[in-house]
Amino acid sequence: MAIEIKTTWKGNMQFESTNPGGNLMIDAGSENDDIGSGYRPKALMLNSLAGCSGLDVVSLLKKMRAEVENIVLEVTADLTEEHPKYYKNVHVVYKFYGSSFKKDKIIKAVRLSEEKYCGVMEMFRQFAVVTTEIIYIEK
Amino acid sequence: MAIEIKTTWKGNMQFESTNPGGNLMIDAGSENDDIGSGYRPKALMLNSLAGCSGLDVVSLLKKMRAEVENIVLEVTADLTEEHPKYYKNVHVVYKFYGSSFKKDKIIKAVRLSEEKYCGVMEMFRQFAVVTTEIIYIEK
Repeated sequence: MAIEIKTTWKGNMQFESTNPGGNLMIDAGSENDDIGSGYRPKALMLNSLAGCSGLDVVSLLKKMRAEVENIVLEVTADLTEEHPKYYKNVHVVYKFYGSSFKKDKIIKAVRLSEEKYCGVMEMFRQFAVVTTEIIYIEK
Repeated sequence: MAIEIKTTWKGNMQFESTNPGGNLMIDAGSENDDIGSGYRPKALMLNSLAGCSGLDVVSLLKKMRAEVENIVLEVTADLTEEHPKYYKNVHVVYKFYGSSFKKDKIIKAVRLSEEKYCGVMEMFRQFAVVTTEIIYIEK
């Protein structure tokens, strides 16, 4: 399966990029004296990672009948100091909100995403040390 | 330097994710019977790649006084068939629009992004075969 995207310069430090879910603006941010606005490209990698794994977990918990009230994923990533700057260490915290958690199923869903389904996490493991953590927040 | 993002489930197959440039919606797409809308997470990796390298090239061409009228980056990426599905081959076409191109400087700018500045491309090279191509479109 092939995915294609097209990215067009809009002047200054701004680009418009296609995605199957709609177009998005990309921008270098104010440290580069641009006047436009848009998403920072390097952080988009982390949005991709969280979205990929989050969608896996929601889908798996539904199949396992282990739904929770809410899910928040927090991703923290360290960049190397030298060019080209890439992510060296990436930590993903899965926060589950609710009550009477089916913890065995939640752990299984997170593990299945990490190890089997999340292609973005598989890609991240090729350049970064990826660690994960589960936190339960009882309501 | 650390980058942090937070991604919150919004119900169905939709998440809202933070980015230094603003929040974005992420969604699994209609093949997964969702009713929401948002960007597809795996394609966001390609938006990240194109944005990162595109910004490098714009910035370098400005410094080199080799501006062009427009730039379009087309990224095509093949996914593996088996889970976890990751990008195996990635091809980036840099299309330059204008006239009287300073081709030596344009080639140099693309090479500098590829080899030195674009951290996202460096990450992609750890899991995919990345190839690039330059096309000039005279106006």
